[in-house]
Amino acid sequence: VRTSHIRVDQVERGQYRHFMQKEIFEQPAAVAETLEGRIERPDWGLDDIADGLAETWSGVEEVLILACGTSYHAAQVARYWMEAHAGLPTAVEVASEFRYRDPVVRPGTAIIAISQSGETADTLAAVRELRAHGHGPVLAICNVRESSLDREADTTLYTEAGPEIGVASTKAFTTQLTVLALLTAAASKSSQGAAWQDPGVWREELRALPRRLHGALELDESMRRVAAGLLGREHALFLGRGPFYPIAMEGALKLKEISYIHAESYPAGELKHGPLALVDEDMPVFVLAPNNQLLDKVLSNLEEVRTRGGDVVVLTEPGQGPPTGEGLEVVELPDPGALLAPVLYTIPLQLLAYHTAVLKGTDVDQPRNLAKSVTVE
Amino acid sequence: VRTSHIRVDQVERGQYRHFMQKEIFEQPAAVAETLEGRIERPDWGLDDIADGLAETWSGVEEVLILACGTSYHAAQVARYWMEAHAGLPTAVEVASEFRYRDPVVRPGTAIIAISQSGETADTLAAVRELRAHGHGPVLAICNVRESSLDREADTTLYTEAGPEIGVASTKAFTTQLTVLALLTAAASKSSQGAAWQDPGVWREELRALPRRLHGALELDESMRRVAAGLLGREHALFLGRGPFYPIAMEGALKLKEISYIHAESYPAGELKHGPLALVDEDMPVFVLAPNNQLLDKVLSNLEEVRTRGGDVVVLTEPGQGPPTGEGLEVVELPDPGALLAPVLYTIPLQLLAYHTAVLKGTDVDQPRNLAKSVTVE
Repeated sequence: VRTSHIRVDQVERGQYRHFMQKEIFEQPAAVAETLEGRIERPDWGLDDIADGLAETWSGVEEVLILACGTSYHAAQVARYWMEAHAGLPTAVEVASEFRYRDPVVRPGTAIIAISQSGETADTLAAVRELRAHGHGPVLAICNVRESSLDREADTTLYTEAGPEIGVASTKAFTTQLTVLALLTAAASKSSQGAAWQDPGVWREELRALPRRLHGALELDESMRRVAAGLLGREHALFLGRGPFYPIAMEGALKLKEISYIHAESYPAGELKHGPLALVDEDMPVFVLAPNNQLLDKVLSNLEEVRTRGGDVVVLTEPGQGPPTGEGLEVVELPDPGALLAPVLYTIPLQLLAYHTAVLKGTDVDQPRNLAKSVTVE
Repeated sequence: VRTSHIRVDQVERGQYRHFMQKEIFEQPAAVAETLEGRIERPDWGLDDIADGLAETWSGVEEVLILACGTSYHAAQVARYWMEAHAGLPTAVEVASEFRYRDPVVRPGTAIIAISQSGETADTLAAVRELRAHGHGPVLAICNVRESSLDREADTTLYTEAGPEIGVASTKAFTTQLTVLALLTAAASKSSQGAAWQDPGVWREELRALPRRLHGALELDESMRRVAAGLLGREHALFLGRGPFYPIAMEGALKLKEISYIHAESYPAGELKHGPLALVDEDMPVFVLAPNNQLLDKVLSNLEEVRTRGGDVVVLTEPGQGPPTGEGLEVVELPDPGALLAPVLYTIPLQLLAYHTAVLKGTDVDQPRNLAKSVTVE
């Protein structure tokens, strides 16, 4: 007999209509829990993130991240962070693909496996296969203690998100990103990438994250209004660049999973290589336009879409977007910071999917055809 | 003044209704042209593919392939080949994404840039950026001699496809795959991956390729019938695994580009992690089920789709698929071989997109919103 330490308020919906809604609004607290005790010391490092991580991480020269579904999107963001900030070559692969090909894995490769439940069949199998070939170390990023992946790994970085009941993952994703940011920042103390930042800057942004998440959640009503505009629509495109492309992927996946709208994501620069043919008045397009060096290019992608009659919703920062106008809705995210802005841009997309599903009347917490954890192949 | 050596029959449609149709049916001849003189010698190698390639390739320890659109799909297939057969770690990236991040590129990395026209702006810019940082060697895979990419590269592997007029690329793709197979086979003489095959086996399959392409084109009428079933549909999913996943990506892109149907591709193992929620009677699903070690798993993915009411079209080999039945159409590809089967599975998907567009009455050779070469960002 194992005693469960889950508190009652963690598995009741309380004031919320759905678990997914509760879990979206829990994110500031969940992320605060993820950070708890890990960045207290001004010169915090790997061992503050997980016991023994410094030893597990020693000798790492490159990174391979394996995951499925939403966890795969978190891994894609981490790839940008790890290469740009820690200078470590990083590959990311869908676990179900990786396990059946003949990949080349070199000595010195840290294998990071991400799974909320720690029971995702393909991710586990890929890790075991790598172990069988003598590769490692294996780091798990998971939410469930004593899960199979937790037991399989050399070191586990717990996301500390608390139980997630909604099938469409929300707080599991943002806490995974938080752990990956912690790992990147700590790793960047010994290896530096072209965009290296002082760990103090990471610490400041990490500390501000719960407050900023609160700020992003204030877009609830705006996103409900945007969601109302999606009623009767069957398609959507999500565009982003850099680490915001995986956020666009995640936004499209959320909408697919619970509203059954056929949403697809593209790195914005690929638009002209084909998907632009799809754009007409029946194809609403969501554009992530963070205030960074690519803003002008993203805004120019946006104009290409508008010229073809597509309705555009642009997520940007105060004063950075074009003026709202015919076929263009601008949603402004207050103060998302810089390093962790991808985490913040996730929130309005979660709210969009949630409200669209509620307005359509689908089963938000138990979408058709899907299970919470994919424990079979 | 430069003299053009393009023959008149290369730029006239002749018996064909559209350039795209002509170019689809030209593929056996185009691929024969690609192979011409390159595998004559029984112990052919790098220098048979391009003058000086052996010298350019010396010292290569890993591979980075940059491309956009259809060329990016060819690169994805090459990644499987290069790692499995030549044992070289291979990364593939969308050029427009690569050029704006801070990637880590190690010494000994061969940079392969793929572009039909040799003028794709993002691919060129990414190559120049890498050169500016002292990386290289740079290998171009392109179709147009004296193009900007050709001039930028240390060595160019010409696809020899002849002029491609249709905006939706067909023979450019299969000849790119042919060149990439030649490169993999030649590279595998000095470095061996887990699935290494004797270069003689590659040579045999390459020699059989034009004949096998002829065989695949005999599916024309079958695919016209399948296309008729797509009329009135607005969505489609394409599923594949391993090197057939990028072929599914290419099949979905073709359908998007010229029929404006919202087609999306997934590695089949990711289905349960979200996209399965989209599957209902309005979502036809195309499954690539080649006769390899993953066949049973792909057929089990197919049953998951059928159980949810999705109409399935499965592309497989004679006698390997389930019996045609309610909601299930089986198309059999005669004799696609093993190593080069991804090239063969491309053909029915090209025919599907072509016939769907013709039946819908869209402008096949000049689809809306798209240009043949994307020479601006």
